[in-house]
Amino acid sequence: MSLLFDRMVQGKNFMAAHVGKWEDLSQYKMTSPFKAYGKVFLKEELQCTGMEVSLNVFPAGASMPFHHKHKENEELYIFVKGEGQFQIDGETFEVREGTVIRVATEGVRTWRNHSSENLYFICIQAKANSLVTGMTEDGVVIDQPINWLEDEKS
Amino acid sequence: MSLLFDRMVQGKNFMAAHVGKWEDLSQYKMTSPFKAYGKVFLKEELQCTGMEVSLNVFPAGASMPFHHKHKENEELYIFVKGEGQFQIDGETFEVREGTVIRVATEGVRTWRNHSSENLYFICIQAKANSLVTGMTEDGVVIDQPINWLEDEKS
Repeated sequence: MSLLFDRMVQGKNFMAAHVGKWEDLSQYKMTSPFKAYGKVFLKEELQCTGMEVSLNVFPAGASMPFHHKHKENEELYIFVKGEGQFQIDGETFEVREGTVIRVATEGVRTWRNHSSENLYFICIQAKANSLVTGMTEDGVVIDQPINWLEDEKS
Repeated sequence: MSLLFDRMVQGKNFMAAHVGKWEDLSQYKMTSPFKAYGKVFLKEELQCTGMEVSLNVFPAGASMPFHHKHKENEELYIFVKGEGQFQIDGETFEVREGTVIRVATEGVRTWRNHSSENLYFICIQAKANSLVTGMTEDGVVIDQPINWLEDEKS
């Protein structure tokens, strides 16, 4: 993992890190099970138990060299910046800043960046049909005072 | 849900939408179970089954008015743009573009934007301990040709 992945702080119930600015993602690479540049996975680094998440930069002119589907995991793609095209089950559509796509396990997917700028996106995997409650239903408000130390203000 | 949430295309195995640019998030609001501006949840709109995801803008000077924890769901926060502070179990740290935080159910969390610019972030909920495989392990490469129709090029 790159030195860019700077572990900032952790506690009993959390782990936080800084992966760098979007433009810095091009410095990340994975080598196994295949080579991929500009991709950083978070699950292992942050010890996630319910999801895998990757942050991605896909350079101008790049295309995924294969289609893929999934065994157990639903995927959600969130496009952060740039423009490209996505294809699922043979259907092609444009993606750009603010495009969000849910793909079921069986969806046969691929994408490309046919623009002249980097395409940035987040991909989230979670086990299909695993979620019990969404929105704010799972949250519990804690009735205790909030203390912000003013000398920690940046 | 706002008109900004433009359903673009759907198929048997997917649903895609465009929620607008990051700056447009301030036009979203939720009214139940409490009022919140600049927050859009994706699960219901995209029919997600394994995760809840929200895209958020938190304006300059804003603070969450309470701490919260969760019953079943792990959370991951991804900071997209801007600066602020996060607090978990009484520990405070800075967040900015590229900060990622995994919080277990029991983590007592709150945050604020004490900067002079908008703070943009994504929050993902998934059931703790539900994920079986991460990284690329769950993917299956599909051996079929990729066809991009050039007249669909934007």
